[in-house]
Amino acid sequence: MYAAPVQELIDELGRLPGVGPKSAQRIAFHLLRVESIDALRLADSIRTVKERISFCRRCFNVAEREGDEAALCGVCTDSRREQTVVCVVEDPRDIVAVEKTQEFHGRYHVLQGAISPIAGIGPEQLRVKELLARVEPEAITEVILCTNPTIEGETTAMYLARLLKPLGIKVTRIASGLPVGGDLEYADELTLGRALEGRREVDGS
Amino acid sequence: MYAAPVQELIDELGRLPGVGPKSAQRIAFHLLRVESIDALRLADSIRTVKERISFCRRCFNVAEREGDEAALCGVCTDSRREQTVVCVVEDPRDIVAVEKTQEFHGRYHVLQGAISPIAGIGPEQLRVKELLARVEPEAITEVILCTNPTIEGETTAMYLARLLKPLGIKVTRIASGLPVGGDLEYADELTLGRALEGRREVDGS
Repeated sequence: MYAAPVQELIDELGRLPGVGPKSAQRIAFHLLRVESIDALRLADSIRTVKERISFCRRCFNVAEREGDEAALCGVCTDSRREQTVVCVVEDPRDIVAVEKTQEFHGRYHVLQGAISPIAGIGPEQLRVKELLARVEPEAITEVILCTNPTIEGETTAMYLARLLKPLGIKVTRIASGLPVGGDLEYADELTLGRALEGRREVDGS
Repeated sequence: MYAAPVQELIDELGRLPGVGPKSAQRIAFHLLRVESIDALRLADSIRTVKERISFCRRCFNVAEREGDEAALCGVCTDSRREQTVVCVVEDPRDIVAVEKTQEFHGRYHVLQGAISPIAGIGPEQLRVKELLARVEPEAITEVILCTNPTIEGETTAMYLARLLKPLGIKVTRIASGLPVGGDLEYADELTLGRALEGRREVDGS
């Protein structure tokens, strides 16, 4: 129904995560309508990202490319960061979330996903062996498993714990429980169950 | 928090309709992760669309560009189409919807939007004067107002009817009512009201 270049753009947009056929059409016609300079700025920023950004060769965080080689990211090159504690996350975006807490001063390891049999993602598709290979040379003493509190994230955390424990290092998992500011009444039973399970003694002093 | 090229891409994506900040991040990191060739195909199809596609100089449907000049669209150049009946729609996508019915054999006029005081869109932002300018030279006898059955679409239809009626042509509006296969029980009162208002005598023969 549409001219070939329009249909191609709709198809390409439809491949993006969270963009269905209707959204793809809507975005394509938006791009058709706006000034060329505005639409091409998007095209150029895609090109620039692919040219200049890659993943950190140590932790797979986002990093600016240096020539043809994959570089180290900002966290890995920051000598003030603790060298021996590593926080394992699924995605580079999770690093931003952890950094915002200002509670963590170690380094990261991005798995680039989580184990999901339904989506056909096993440990071999993730950066698991790269994590194991860091433990000895970097003298890592603690790995914090900071994957999502979802079935996939929990499965991944359990899987990694089983691999890391025998290496004689401390393996911890972030706490699940009620979100701060949340309401007991509206908490789902699984979350409330986890909150009870993870209860801590109150210091009465 | 992100490297400049990544943040720029997130910003550009966030300007697309229906793409919020979280979706923009998700799409940006998806583009970071996929092969360069796949990401650049999207960049190229944006560029191609802006280079090769423009709007029909007569009806503002999507049309392939001819050199520097805006061309006529496929419907306008099709001599088998009725010349004197024009269907007025808000968006080129609506043409595809009408074409699928195979019930309309005339030509179109795309307003490129609808009157919306809230969004600051008045008749002067729409292709209204271009529509009026077509009536005499094309000897138009009927204009079908096929804008959406929303407040904006209805307002636009009423506005156009007031302008077109004095030109001595037939002005019609598409029917509102229950969708085929719909259920009376679940129909909203406005739609059901319209269905009653638009009732037609049943031919008992």
